[in-house]
Amino acid sequence: MVGIIMGSSSDLPVMQDAIQVCKDFGIPYEVDIVSAHRTPVKMLEYAQSAKSRGIQVIIAGAGGAAHLPGMVASATILPVIGVPVKSSNSIDGWDSILSILQMPNGVPVATVALNASKNAGLLAVQMIAISDASLSAKLDRYKVELIEKVAEMSQKTNDLIK
Amino acid sequence: MVGIIMGSSSDLPVMQDAIQVCKDFGIPYEVDIVSAHRTPVKMLEYAQSAKSRGIQVIIAGAGGAAHLPGMVASATILPVIGVPVKSSNSIDGWDSILSILQMPNGVPVATVALNASKNAGLLAVQMIAISDASLSAKLDRYKVELIEKVAEMSQKTNDLIK
Amino acid sequence: MVGIIMGSSSDLPVMQDAIQVCKDFGIPYEVDIVSAHRTPVKMLEYAQSAKSRGIQVIIAGAGGAAHLPGMVASATILPVIGVPVKSSNSIDGWDSILSILQMPNGVPVATVALNASKNAGLLAVQMIAISDASLSAKLDRYKVELIEKVAEMSQKTNDLIK
Amino acid sequence: MVGIIMGSSSDLPVMQDAIQVCKDFGIPYEVDIVSAHRTPVKMLEYAQSAKSRGIQVIIAGAGGAAHLPGMVASATILPVIGVPVKSSNSIDGWDSILSILQMPNGVPVATVALNASKNAGLLAVQMIAISDASLSAKLDRYKVELIEKVAEMSQKTNDLIK
Amino acid sequence: MVGIIMGSSSDLPVMQDAIQVCKDFGIPYEVDIVSAHRTPVKMLEYAQSAKSRGIQVIIAGAGGAAHLPGMVASATILPVIGVPVKSSNSIDGWDSILSILQMPNGVPVATVALNASKNAGLLAVQMIAISDASLSAKLDRYKVELIEKVAEMSQKTNDLIK
Amino acid sequence: MVGIIMGSSSDLPVMQDAIQVCKDFGIPYEVDIVSAHRTPVKMLEYAQSAKSRGIQVIIAGAGGAAHLPGMVASATILPVIGVPVKSSNSIDGWDSILSILQMPNGVPVATVALNASKNAGLLAVQMIAISDASLSAKLDRYKVELIEKVAEMSQKTNDLIK
Amino acid sequence: MVGIIMGSSSDLPVMQDAIQVCKDFGIPYEVDIVSAHRTPVKMLEYAQSAKSRGIQVIIAGAGGAAHLPGMVASATILPVIGVPVKSSNSIDGWDSILSILQMPNGVPVATVALNASKNAGLLAVQMIAISDASLSAKLDRYKVELIEKVAEMSQKTNDLIK
Amino acid sequence: MVGIIMGSSSDLPVMQDAIQVCKDFGIPYEVDIVSAHRTPVKMLEYAQSAKSRGIQVIIAGAGGAAHLPGMVASATILPVIGVPVKSSNSIDGWDSILSILQMPNGVPVATVALNASKNAGLLAVQMIAISDASLSAKLDRYKVELIEKVAEMSQKTNDLIK
Repeated sequence: MVGIIMGSSSDLPVMQDAIQVCKDFGIPYEVDIVSAHRTPVKMLEYAQSAKSRGIQVIIAGAGGAAHLPGMVASATILPVIGVPVKSSNSIDGWDSILSILQMPNGVPVATVALNASKNAGLLAVQMIAISDASLSAKLDRYKVELIEKVAEMSQKTNDLIK
Repeated sequence: MVGIIMGSSSDLPVMQDAIQVCKDFGIPYEVDIVSAHRTPVKMLEYAQSAKSRGIQVIIAGAGGAAHLPGMVASATILPVIGVPVKSSNSIDGWDSILSILQMPNGVPVATVALNASKNAGLLAVQMIAISDASLSAKLDRYKVELIEKVAEMSQKTNDLIK
Repeated sequence: MVGIIMGSSSDLPVMQDAIQVCKDFGIPYEVDIVSAHRTPVKMLEYAQSAKSRGIQVIIAGAGGAAHLPGMVASATILPVIGVPVKSSNSIDGWDSILSILQMPNGVPVATVALNASKNAGLLAVQMIAISDASLSAKLDRYKVELIEKVAEMSQKTNDLIK
Repeated sequence: MVGIIMGSSSDLPVMQDAIQVCKDFGIPYEVDIVSAHRTPVKMLEYAQSAKSRGIQVIIAGAGGAAHLPGMVASATILPVIGVPVKSSNSIDGWDSILSILQMPNGVPVATVALNASKNAGLLAVQMIAISDASLSAKLDRYKVELIEKVAEMSQKTNDLIK
Repeated sequence: MVGIIMGSSSDLPVMQDAIQVCKDFGIPYEVDIVSAHRTPVKMLEYAQSAKSRGIQVIIAGAGGAAHLPGMVASATILPVIGVPVKSSNSIDGWDSILSILQMPNGVPVATVALNASKNAGLLAVQMIAISDASLSAKLDRYKVELIEKVAEMSQKTNDLIK
Repeated sequence: MVGIIMGSSSDLPVMQDAIQVCKDFGIPYEVDIVSAHRTPVKMLEYAQSAKSRGIQVIIAGAGGAAHLPGMVASATILPVIGVPVKSSNSIDGWDSILSILQMPNGVPVATVALNASKNAGLLAVQMIAISDASLSAKLDRYKVELIEKVAEMSQKTNDLIK
Repeated sequence: MVGIIMGSSSDLPVMQDAIQVCKDFGIPYEVDIVSAHRTPVKMLEYAQSAKSRGIQVIIAGAGGAAHLPGMVASATILPVIGVPVKSSNSIDGWDSILSILQMPNGVPVATVALNASKNAGLLAVQMIAISDASLSAKLDRYKVELIEKVAEMSQKTNDLIK
Repeated sequence: MVGIIMGSSSDLPVMQDAIQVCKDFGIPYEVDIVSAHRTPVKMLEYAQSAKSRGIQVIIAGAGGAAHLPGMVASATILPVIGVPVKSSNSIDGWDSILSILQMPNGVPVATVALNASKNAGLLAVQMIAISDASLSAKLDRYKVELIEKVAEMSQKTNDLIK
């Protein structure tokens, strides 16, 4: 199961892509609003109990001084994927990125690109697929689809240009 | 009393200036290593108990993805002063600054300049002096000393140039 | 009393949040336009007389080469909170932030996030609450409200997703 | 097994920490120099064959226009961890970070902090531990050690200051 | 012949200017969608076969972690011109620029300004013109047109201002 | 007469070049330490009295949150040249540059490059030379010297390479 | 006389403010489109002949790789004021600023804030006023107007808030 | 023939790599100091006469407000390769890069990485090789050498680690 959390419901539009990936790959997931700064106790309890509740990977999205992914990582041994969100109070996303990426040695966060919750979902799938052959097969098919989409774009572009 | 904390003992050389200001102004203080990422439970307990232990202002220094000041602020109503530290794992200090400064509405951190723990100390003194006339008087004298130092520098510079 | 000043009336929409916080917490305040660059004499007089006029904390908002918070801090021993404003002539707010944050040792400014005048207001409340137990109680209630709002968001998000 | 690769032998001092983590946690690993720009065919073959050779996670370190992690991710469904290296030809690490982090949707790279190959190693351990209880137990012990180290630092700092 | 490629059909609006320059100067060209991250094998084959298919210069446009120009350059001895595209997932173009520009020694990419596919086209023409006198003559005429356009603007501006 | 001021005597090594230019061109000058933040009253009096004391141009150097040039410009109609100093407390000079450069409309500061006090001196000479033909003649000679120095370097480089 | 030039007629909306300042202060001016990159010979001739044609100060606005101010300064001893323009092809103005500001020693450009052509105009007036008492008097009046405008804003803001 | 120029003899250590590449590939070259800012007339004459003197490609290195490559490109139809130099007066190279890279449409400069004069040399070789089969063959051999060097590094690294 993938635990998907975010600091505010305003992050939901960005985080929907991660939810969709879980659906597409048939992986169970749960979603919650957990704020490091407004609900630090809930946040810590979430992180401490995640593994025992069956969660395998945590995806955490946050913007500005984005402490949620790193703080969750401080209190669990599960892999935590951080999604820097370009929220309204962020300085073009730089604060979100650096607050999530630059974790000190000992407490890693797997950071993806700005707003890239789709990649966060895929990364979670890849992690779980390490020991799940049928999920691996789905990822193989996904890779083929990426190639097919480029072939389609290639065809359309050449039609357009001629 | 001022609570002075930092994420690692490697931040101590930078944070010494804040300790010295407390000494100079005769304000009691305590110092501790509290890591948001390695000791999240201790960190939360520190923040939650600070006020009842007599602390009036908290100064927190951290570098890189510097979550300590903001996380302490999440669990106390005391004013928290954040000192961005240009630690060895920091990208020229930008990550330290943005992680501390860009707090979401509802949970402020009073951020000072990069490595400026002296100003953190002075800011703590100013906060306590709001209701302490003798401390105010010391700050007035400190202002005069600043002026005198510039006068000295002015004198020496003109001697040097002539 | 909190003194809220800004460099131009165009900063008022951003600075309204600080005013609202003072209203919400029942703290007296005064508001004025004080420009470091256009009215340096008024600015200096404002800073020099603030304490004797009963002001306990000054909140100063400014954008671009934002000198107002630092210059006010140069002429008062009161704590000064600086709000970097992302004004129309600012380079994405970087100039506003660095001009306010990077004060030299001896003259601190408590800097909050870009446009975060709400946090400036809360920080002022926290400072005054150091010696005001009823204000502390209000801050305690505010912390509880933050938690309740996240609980609400959590509920709504789960309803939305199901 | 963890595959640890880097673009040049000059990245080895940084990447040693990832190797050490694998040793410490008793995870098999292999190390190779694979350059996206100088040996694109070897790089592609490495990525394409990694899973069938028993590799579960790939750690790739590179500096400057750091294409190695993303290109390896383009040709494998294994999770790829990218370590931005502050190499001599890098602009303070910004190019290394952005080249690795900002991957397009569909092809994720789990990015860690600048030079943070230790965290890359730990992240790989966390990923494998999803389905390995004894490895999870080792991670639990590692968390406890982090806490103990801070307690030690706390003790020493207070001795130093007294 | 000039080979014009881009990572996605969404880059086509930006890359049209390069196509237009080829048309204007009467240079044959081909256009294709080649994604380094989604179609690494196609990308490598494109680069390896380009010279033998008669291509003299390659123009490659990409955004975000823009690996296409550098990876194509890794597998051909033809000059490769990189166009950093300010795509929707780019951080104001900085990631696109640094990913293309900061290539390691041994594998150059001729980088032009953000979105400047027109200049990429002109640069390709200049390269081919090294051994093509009639193309040189066209470039001479183009230089004269630039001067004439400024003269026109100068005239209009003075009319406007009077 | 040129007034050369700086925020601290630690800026003197950088500001010496401006002094030297005044000497070289035979322009009278005076030097002083004037700190916007530590001596705001002295700073304002300096600016207000500068013109009546015969000063024609003011050169002001400062680092970090560099308010001196802008604040002096607020209180005089003389042209003020700002020299951003890369001082020890500056973030690679970015704060110094932006604090000086990004002045609001109505109060200009003529900003030169980081640490470029030599150019500040030359700019002051150019300003005074507007109405001083003998100074103009010296500037003409200076231009010729620049050309001669390049000719010398050209000669030496070719000798070196042969 | 002030010479106002810009690299393209698209810079005119920004540069209008400089023209207006000249009108307001009764200083003669001329306006032209001079492109460093498209009309280098015209540019050099403009700079070389400016002084003999009666120009006292040159204001040059340009965006992107903004070479116009610096190149004009290379070929005249007149003071050159550079206006970094945030043009459509600029990266948030950073390229415009750095290309104009960071001139090497020997060839100064007086740089003003991004798009601040009004300040460029005022700076030109200040330079000419060094030897023109009636112009100085106009600048004195302008300073008073700035103060009056703030007083008005102060009044209106207090009316608005009550 | 390749024309290699730089703004100052202090750029020679960086530019030596470009010279060495020309030597290694047996391409004639000439070297000169040409300063856009100190010798604008020489610079323009160099650019205008380069083609008729037999130069096929120009490599221009410069730092800070690096106008040399763009200005040379303004006055020749030859391809111009720009090398941003991290000179002592540069802000970590950002000014050098942006001043060279961000050329307006119509006047391209082929920009390489910071200090990457070796890649500038290789790019010049690639351009000339478009119509020179023996030079192409040398570039093919160079590609093979790159692969061999990585194989060597790979061997040594594995020996080191065992």
